[in-house]
Amino acid sequence: MSKIKGALVVVQGGGPTQVINASLYGVVKEALGRLDDSAEILGARHGIMGVLNRQWWDLRRQPEALWEEIRLSPGSALGSSRKMLNAEEADEAVRILNEKAVRYLACIGGNDSMDTANKLAAAAAEMDYDLQTAGIPKTIDNDLPHTDHCPGFGSAARYIAQSAIDLGTDVGTLPTPISIMEVMGRNAGWLTAATMAARQREDDAPHLIYVPETPLEAGRFLDDIQAVYTRQGWVVAAVSEGLKDEKGKAWSVPRSAAAADEFGHVLPGDVATTLAGLVSEKLKLRARSEKPGLLGRSSRLLASEVDRREAEQVGRFGLAWMLDGHSSFMAAIRRESDSPYQVSYFAVPLREVANVERTLPLDYLTPERNQVRETFRAYVEPLIGGALIRHARLRDGVAQAFQPVISCAS
Amino acid sequence: MSKIKGALVVVQGGGPTQVINASLYGVVKEALGRLDDSAEILGARHGIMGVLNRQWWDLRRQPEALWEEIRLSPGSALGSSRKMLNAEEADEAVRILNEKAVRYLACIGGNDSMDTANKLAAAAAEMDYDLQTAGIPKTIDNDLPHTDHCPGFGSAARYIAQSAIDLGTDVGTLPTPISIMEVMGRNAGWLTAATMAARQREDDAPHLIYVPETPLEAGRFLDDIQAVYTRQGWVVAAVSEGLKDEKGKAWSVPRSAAAADEFGHVLPGDVATTLAGLVSEKLKLRARSEKPGLLGRSSRLLASEVDRREAEQVGRFGLAWMLDGHSSFMAAIRRESDSPYQVSYFAVPLREVANVERTLPLDYLTPERNQVRETFRAYVEPLIGGALIRHARLRDGVAQAFQPVISCAS
Repeated sequence: MSKIKGALVVVQGGGPTQVINASLYGVVKEALGRLDDSAEILGARHGIMGVLNRQWWDLRRQPEALWEEIRLSPGSALGSSRKMLNAEEADEAVRILNEKAVRYLACIGGNDSMDTANKLAAAAAEMDYDLQTAGIPKTIDNDLPHTDHCPGFGSAARYIAQSAIDLGTDVGTLPTPISIMEVMGRNAGWLTAATMAARQREDDAPHLIYVPETPLEAGRFLDDIQAVYTRQGWVVAAVSEGLKDEKGKAWSVPRSAAAADEFGHVLPGDVATTLAGLVSEKLKLRARSEKPGLLGRSSRLLASEVDRREAEQVGRFGLAWMLDGHSSFMAAIRRESDSPYQVSYFAVPLREVANVERTLPLDYLTPERNQVRETFRAYVEPLIGGALIRHARLRDGVAQAFQPVISCAS
Repeated sequence: MSKIKGALVVVQGGGPTQVINASLYGVVKEALGRLDDSAEILGARHGIMGVLNRQWWDLRRQPEALWEEIRLSPGSALGSSRKMLNAEEADEAVRILNEKAVRYLACIGGNDSMDTANKLAAAAAEMDYDLQTAGIPKTIDNDLPHTDHCPGFGSAARYIAQSAIDLGTDVGTLPTPISIMEVMGRNAGWLTAATMAARQREDDAPHLIYVPETPLEAGRFLDDIQAVYTRQGWVVAAVSEGLKDEKGKAWSVPRSAAAADEFGHVLPGDVATTLAGLVSEKLKLRARSEKPGLLGRSSRLLASEVDRREAEQVGRFGLAWMLDGHSSFMAAIRRESDSPYQVSYFAVPLREVANVERTLPLDYLTPERNQVRETFRAYVEPLIGGALIRHARLRDGVAQAFQPVISCAS
């Protein structure tokens, strides 16, 4: 089989995940195997900005052993950006790629990156430049459509579910009885919902889960906290950073305009701080907040092996499919079965995914909209990749009714 | 050798650590070996409140295999409290212990617990009740005097140093170039300083470290951030939750009185949120904050094996020393050498540690008070217990000067 000529450029866009470099590894390994030795394999530095600035990594010149390390490393190995291309810039980027005789473009990213890939494909088509494009999905938010789930989500889900277990073990024995844990995810509650995997018993954290797909009124929130506190004396709630109230106003701490990126996204967050303050003030209960933030997508120790393997495979599939002659698609994952967990890979047209956000279906929520139903467990548990660490508790000789020995300042 | 008669009560106080139950394990194992089978071994439920409420765990009735799990579990297995005993309550607690024929009391905790142990010893002495007391140190804050370091600190240091590495790997490739990471420690900067262990190269995170032992003025902070940003295009700063400004005012988000515990400690925190907001507003740079909070003391995966071993040993030593006839002391760790790292255990009088806080010596700081000197590395690295996970970076063919390809909203 003769090898394929033509250079490849790889781009990583948006926020990293624990396994975004496993996808890069998959793309590069597949390219090394199938492209002619004369074909350049380039990485754009800092996302699409690297193309516009003509700043490249020579991915052929990285040592073999380094790739095994890169595969396991968090962060975007190529560097990332959140640059939004206007029509002129898209044309300019395509001209630069054409100038370098680039035939293949692989964009590893989320919604915005898929939009960028789509724009570049369109701009190239208008110039009669035969540029083939493939989108490789990546997002901890799990909000890309048509794919069963997104690489990056399973690892972030593993991190946050394990964190909910750990936090519950701490708070459950603590004189500060309320903790609000903030979870990433601007508009989609998939990751926040994933904390339900921490729960095996009624009193396991998180006792309350709030996703951005449904508004959270202050009164309802306080009633929920009070009810759990009255029942068992302590509460862990998981809240999405994108939570809004019944008027559509974000619960996050207001930020200056400097917090917005070029896509116009304002940095969300500090919702947990605000809600913990509300509990202290209104319920007179000692409440605190935790916000692991970016740690939730950069912990190698808490990555999911299933997710890492799929991230690599989806990269390999995307590249192979493009080299087989397809273009303007996103590689996607189809779940063949839950148990045993099995997947296959397929392609969806980029125009069907660009800028489309898939949020959490509301029927995964309980009627009270403060907890996730058990039906979600079959979806999320295989992605987390193996059992979470459960902590031991001392055993009682006799069953004891709850006694509020925790002292609270009034 | 005849076995010792007389019941033992164990108390855990204050916030848990990743290894507080390794100390419990050490105490209980030593007690099982040396106390007569007729002697009760009890755990007070929820700290000293368990004594006042006569709520006990029967620690003899826990299965052998469970102890091996408890040893590894975060959270306070006995339950904790922050109850501050007044004189009347101290008398009452001692009466209850006397009534149960308790001869030995082991308090696993920090400054406040040492104070409680000291009060109980004094109250017992006044009643001519021969109660022997031992304090077993435990605090992630590392602020107990006379001991080289405190069990719990090494594990929290491992967690936060690894987190700084992970965060730096993410932020360094990201279009949001500033992250402020908040670290626990009300008045003592030991744990915040421990993030320096993440650094091997000049551009490794955290680039700036601020401890509560020295005030942080807004102007100086913004100048520091701007200088690092100008130099390399991104910044990770580690800040203590207890940071104050030059007027002594806390940088944390103001809280209602409900956030105070019975020792009058107001929950600190959300300093990072405030400082990130300041950077966004004044420097017009996209800044965010991370606050792992309690996750930093409850992660079993990121515990230090050295710390866990010492936590057990200090528990064993404390109990053995008490059974040998000593009382009113805190078990402590003496560092015999840095390399090879070796320690021994000794006792200090409780009255010399109760309510004494050991803060970070200022000569560990650089003259600019925004970074920790390399002299601290020899102190902290052995406690972290083994190498941290370093992440790989792609290699350049040629050295490149820094080019600010990161786009920032203005």
